[in-house]
Amino acid sequence: MTVLEQMGANAKQAARVLMNAGSKKDEALLAIAKALRDNAQAIIAANKIDLDNGRAAGLTDSLLDRLKLDDGRIEGMAQGVEQVASQPDPIGKIIEGRTLKNGLMIEKITVPMGVIGIIYEARPNVTSDAAALCLKAGSAVILRGGKEAIHSNTAIMDVMRDAIASVGLPRDCAALVTDTTRQSATELMQLSDYLDVLIPRGGAGLIKSVVENAKVPVIETGVGNCHVYVDESADIAMAAEIIFNAKTSRPSVCNAIETVLVHQAVAEKALPAIKAALDKKHVEIRGCDKTRAILGDCVVPATENDYAVEFLDYILAVKVVDSLDDALDHIAKYSTGHSESIITNDYNAANKFTSCVDSAAVYVNASTRFTDGGEFGLGAEIGISTQKLHARGPMGLNELTSMKFIIRGNGQIR
Amino acid sequence: MTVLEQMGANAKQAARVLMNAGSKKDEALLAIAKALRDNAQAIIAANKIDLDNGRAAGLTDSLLDRLKLDDGRIEGMAQGVEQVASQPDPIGKIIEGRTLKNGLMIEKITVPMGVIGIIYEARPNVTSDAAALCLKAGSAVILRGGKEAIHSNTAIMDVMRDAIASVGLPRDCAALVTDTTRQSATELMQLSDYLDVLIPRGGAGLIKSVVENAKVPVIETGVGNCHVYVDESADIAMAAEIIFNAKTSRPSVCNAIETVLVHQAVAEKALPAIKAALDKKHVEIRGCDKTRAILGDCVVPATENDYAVEFLDYILAVKVVDSLDDALDHIAKYSTGHSESIITNDYNAANKFTSCVDSAAVYVNASTRFTDGGEFGLGAEIGISTQKLHARGPMGLNELTSMKFIIRGNGQIR
Repeated sequence: MTVLEQMGANAKQAARVLMNAGSKKDEALLAIAKALRDNAQAIIAANKIDLDNGRAAGLTDSLLDRLKLDDGRIEGMAQGVEQVASQPDPIGKIIEGRTLKNGLMIEKITVPMGVIGIIYEARPNVTSDAAALCLKAGSAVILRGGKEAIHSNTAIMDVMRDAIASVGLPRDCAALVTDTTRQSATELMQLSDYLDVLIPRGGAGLIKSVVENAKVPVIETGVGNCHVYVDESADIAMAAEIIFNAKTSRPSVCNAIETVLVHQAVAEKALPAIKAALDKKHVEIRGCDKTRAILGDCVVPATENDYAVEFLDYILAVKVVDSLDDALDHIAKYSTGHSESIITNDYNAANKFTSCVDSAAVYVNASTRFTDGGEFGLGAEIGISTQKLHARGPMGLNELTSMKFIIRGNGQIR
Repeated sequence: MTVLEQMGANAKQAARVLMNAGSKKDEALLAIAKALRDNAQAIIAANKIDLDNGRAAGLTDSLLDRLKLDDGRIEGMAQGVEQVASQPDPIGKIIEGRTLKNGLMIEKITVPMGVIGIIYEARPNVTSDAAALCLKAGSAVILRGGKEAIHSNTAIMDVMRDAIASVGLPRDCAALVTDTTRQSATELMQLSDYLDVLIPRGGAGLIKSVVENAKVPVIETGVGNCHVYVDESADIAMAAEIIFNAKTSRPSVCNAIETVLVHQAVAEKALPAIKAALDKKHVEIRGCDKTRAILGDCVVPATENDYAVEFLDYILAVKVVDSLDDALDHIAKYSTGHSESIITNDYNAANKFTSCVDSAAVYVNASTRFTDGGEFGLGAEIGISTQKLHARGPMGLNELTSMKFIIRGNGQIR
């Protein structure tokens, strides 16, 4: 058995206990929160090694900031775990049921996934956030973070495993893959005897690698090439405000927009208003010929690739379209199925857009930035699914569960 | 573009139309049913080529029987399609919704998967059954059947595509991969730019190949190493009757049992009763040492492998266990997570079994043979999922859908 196979086997055993652990799960979460606070200095010391190594390896200031832990951030992690503890238990809910004519009583009930694998990058707070959600959902979890955060993650995981054991649950309810080579990631993606589901959290490169290599069921998350379409009938001021918000309030996240489509009938009026808003944050506009004809040479000519990529930066692609249908075609071609919004005052255009756009979240007259578990009222979020199986859009505790049928009879045969 | 990529691109275009096709879908299904009847002789003629080739290739009588189409079977296919047409539309159901404090109105609504791929073996009636379910669920479908049925499947698909086109929907709502090489199956499993989900329907070999090769989201179906556990408190006559039913009423299907576990306290009494029932159908018993000590040398010594495989035949593995916990350990080790049943009169044992067995369907005092979409009241069935993502257990129309969030606002930004 390889190290990872052993880890998988241990997690599978732990999952059998966790499956019916009931309120023990909340005890464990509260113990974790306390332990994170009690061991804050040790975690910060480990984090300092990662920061020193990161600086030596030339990480950008923005990456170093994501990596950094301090008292405030550890308090935030502890509070996050407590919030998960305070949510209702997603396990054991009877979703539906009926009595069949032959007297069989059948019910469909929520159950844990079993063993959940999570591959993530950079930020060490994900280690406690993700483990807490999986624990609460009754599943054992195997985490594999990025090599930049390995000392921080190891320290956090040690604290969590001790806390889990302190309430009498198996330590292996949570585990960290400490081998941060590419091989260990690939092996985790292929641990089909032990993993019930794998959730990659990261950029397009990680998602691509998972699609290429995974042999376990996967929930793809997070790649968002999101669009706002400004319809012929749009309130131009609202359009400019929503576009400014969706592009600039946090450009590095997946629900930020990357392309704006503008109906040709309002392009002359809308484009200058949109540009004026974006100029406040010095957003670079990459536009089609029609956009450039209206806004001038300050607009960089857009390439095909500009419509296909996530900039995750203060850059926006803009295209003038002939019609709503034209916009729908563009979105069907380039969208990653995350979030799209139409700005319109036309009832039929709104309905057509919401019916025809095949994305996890489809908006009318609102910013795509609302695609978020917290905003949607799902509680803490494990990620945003951009696939159509199992869960789509923001995933909270409920989306981390599976179900089974329980059938009670008195001797029925078929 | 390869032939399959072109097929995928065509299906994706067709899916955009089908997504909002409403009652046109039922028109298409009724046209398909009529066309199957009208073209029965042409289909039977094509089927005769497959039968002749099959005989020449030395297919067993049982496989030839599965392959054979006649007027009665084609009428059955037509009626199956009509039944799917008569079911309620699974698309456009609002699952839940709420208004957020900021005034955003958010609803979660069922939508089609998009493009569904199905790889199946042997029986040509699956071609119309599966296509009908996918169409009704608003998804385009790409089918790839076995090479034994290629002429039958091609004839059925031609009839269906003409019928679909006759009501004004795109012909490419359904398509058949006519290349039946292993390469085409692998290419379909990796058609990630076009397929939203792949459902393999077949034996353990096919499922294994899909797990190894797929790069698209998969719903695994059908491998069932199912167990009956006879508890200390069981009604022995009921146990014998349920075991006889679950093993012999149709041994080749996935919800038939493969192993019986008997509590040691009742083994002396239960095993002879079970054997007497199974003898009526000459079931071969492969047992542990304790089983052989009770039933004698007519019982073949069971190997480790006998507990791990699906016999799909008149063969049953039997093991005497020390306790319910012992039975739970055995099931956790060998079960494929399909269906398991406990025979008991003990309230706590029943609850422990249903809580601790991690399978799609967990029974008390009933035959595992009920794990079936029709029996569960889900309508026609596309397969039985043995994985924990998306759908688990029998999958009907609802399990062939995805969902999206629609959010209506009046200028909200975050």
